[in-house]
Amino acid sequence: MTTNRQLLLRARPSGLVTPEVLQLTETPVAKLEEGQALGRVKYLSIDPTMRVWMADIPQYMPPVQIGEVMRSFGLAEIEESRHPDYKKGDKVMGLTGLQEYVVITGTEKRGFQKVPSIPFLSDTNFLGTLGVNGLTAYFGLLEIGKPQAGETLVVSAAAGATGSIAGQLGKIHGCRVVGIAGSEEKCKWIKGELGFDAAINYKQADWMVQLEAATPNGVDIDFENVGGEIMQAVIHRMNLHGRVVLCGLISGYTKNDPALASFAQVVIRRLRVEGFIILDYAARFMEPAQKLGMWKMTGKLKDRQTILKGLDKAPEAINMLFAGGNIGKLMIEL
Amino acid sequence: MTTNRQLLLRARPSGLVTPEVLQLTETPVAKLEEGQALGRVKYLSIDPTMRVWMADIPQYMPPVQIGEVMRSFGLAEIEESRHPDYKKGDKVMGLTGLQEYVVITGTEKRGFQKVPSIPFLSDTNFLGTLGVNGLTAYFGLLEIGKPQAGETLVVSAAAGATGSIAGQLGKIHGCRVVGIAGSEEKCKWIKGELGFDAAINYKQADWMVQLEAATPNGVDIDFENVGGEIMQAVIHRMNLHGRVVLCGLISGYTKNDPALASFAQVVIRRLRVEGFIILDYAARFMEPAQKLGMWKMTGKLKDRQTILKGLDKAPEAINMLFAGGNIGKLMIEL
Repeated sequence: MTTNRQLLLRARPSGLVTPEVLQLTETPVAKLEEGQALGRVKYLSIDPTMRVWMADIPQYMPPVQIGEVMRSFGLAEIEESRHPDYKKGDKVMGLTGLQEYVVITGTEKRGFQKVPSIPFLSDTNFLGTLGVNGLTAYFGLLEIGKPQAGETLVVSAAAGATGSIAGQLGKIHGCRVVGIAGSEEKCKWIKGELGFDAAINYKQADWMVQLEAATPNGVDIDFENVGGEIMQAVIHRMNLHGRVVLCGLISGYTKNDPALASFAQVVIRRLRVEGFIILDYAARFMEPAQKLGMWKMTGKLKDRQTILKGLDKAPEAINMLFAGGNIGKLMIEL
Repeated sequence: MTTNRQLLLRARPSGLVTPEVLQLTETPVAKLEEGQALGRVKYLSIDPTMRVWMADIPQYMPPVQIGEVMRSFGLAEIEESRHPDYKKGDKVMGLTGLQEYVVITGTEKRGFQKVPSIPFLSDTNFLGTLGVNGLTAYFGLLEIGKPQAGETLVVSAAAGATGSIAGQLGKIHGCRVVGIAGSEEKCKWIKGELGFDAAINYKQADWMVQLEAATPNGVDIDFENVGGEIMQAVIHRMNLHGRVVLCGLISGYTKNDPALASFAQVVIRRLRVEGFIILDYAARFMEPAQKLGMWKMTGKLKDRQTILKGLDKAPEAINMLFAGGNIGKLMIEL
């Protein structure tokens, strides 16, 4: 009887993954039933999102439950099949989990797909460049970032599996691409081999100055994988109406920072957070003014005013706003 | 000779506006030149954005310089005119500044507009409901929030000049509207008089429980005026693909919180921050896979792999991601 070595989630981590968190167990592989196939896992994909799956927080898939095999993507080869879609020797990709064998059924939700055999492409490419990372870089950059030739794209975690593809896709679409990474070797790879226009090592003390120098026309798109200080520095370089593609926030996954929590929910719930300033709509001011005026005159729109008297009341009035002292429109009558 | 009392910015505030920040001075009003008109300021608009204008941070207009008249919107009546567009008695609205008299020239950038005389509308309406606040609520809600009938809209600072209009516009467009405000009186006004479906006093200890009860179908649009904890609580109630209209972050204007700084820049630079999860694009996976495969095969897309061996390396591998230990795709070979 075949033994399956598995890593089970035994405790929720508070920071990094400590020995109590994942426990190695051995279970026998049960005899296949009709409609099942047995895959021998060849490669496991290790992704930052796994740390999110370990946490008991609202997220885009159910968190892994204590006692379950830890969820992960992986590539497996079918060893035995009683499933109509698979035969021995087929290679499949999907949510194998951290284990040596995976039983695939017709109805399970782990999204297994056959891995085609294509010249010049290795099986492992289907876990990375042609797998989740490539698709993430592709849809994130093109659908959310909407790059235009000549724009400046900054990618954080630029030497990672997703960032390295996102940056290259930016080059293919005519952008100036600046990568942020955490070592000289990584910077050398993305600039020297992948063709990024500039690479910034955020472990150098003057990295923010380097970022400024590398983005002389500001930043139009931030493909954000990191969050925290790095995202903040990039946001401070962004041009009006720039786009932040919030793909990941790896700097926060091992911390319990409530400020990061809001951004994390923006990813998890696929929210769009958009800042605006009324001045941008100056050319269209007459359109709402007419409607607002009509609604106000017909009583559909009500208002209330808080009015202080005298110029010397202005400082007090400004402070009232922050203490919640006014109801409706706050004004000073002179 | 007429004397103009003015409030000059004398120091940048670190928190609230203290007596050193704004100094009352008196200056004589100079004789009008050809092309100028003199307005007697009747009403000053007091808005949270004034606190931003006082700070020396990157923002959507130049910060007010030390020694200048503090910037503000206001409504003035023309007392004397050598300007072709204005005659004595005209009422105008624009950036008067905190002063009793304002000299209007043909070329100044303070955007003065004549205030029309319309039955049932008072002059002061043009500073609020029909002025900056009304326009902000209108474009912010309709252009960024894109409300659909039946959706749930939450408005923070809901009894403020902008929030109270945004909520009523939500009702006009068929939304369920929940307002968050800081007193019972405010809540009574927005629910009882303005027709909000629910009003939540965030000063009550159980306000988050009340928010949950008031949003049984989650939240589709957050018209955000406050930021901080209030925004965070609303974001945690939001539905997939919800929209956060980032109009203001009043909770942070008197604080130097770096986490708030990123959100403030989203407003100031009118950025769009959008979270996404690759699963949403599942139906379209074949489209990029073909392109990525072609680029990979023709060498336009390069990748690199970091491969560890053995299932027991998985915890170490996951931690490598957070220490920046891998270059390119991180995998485990079994």
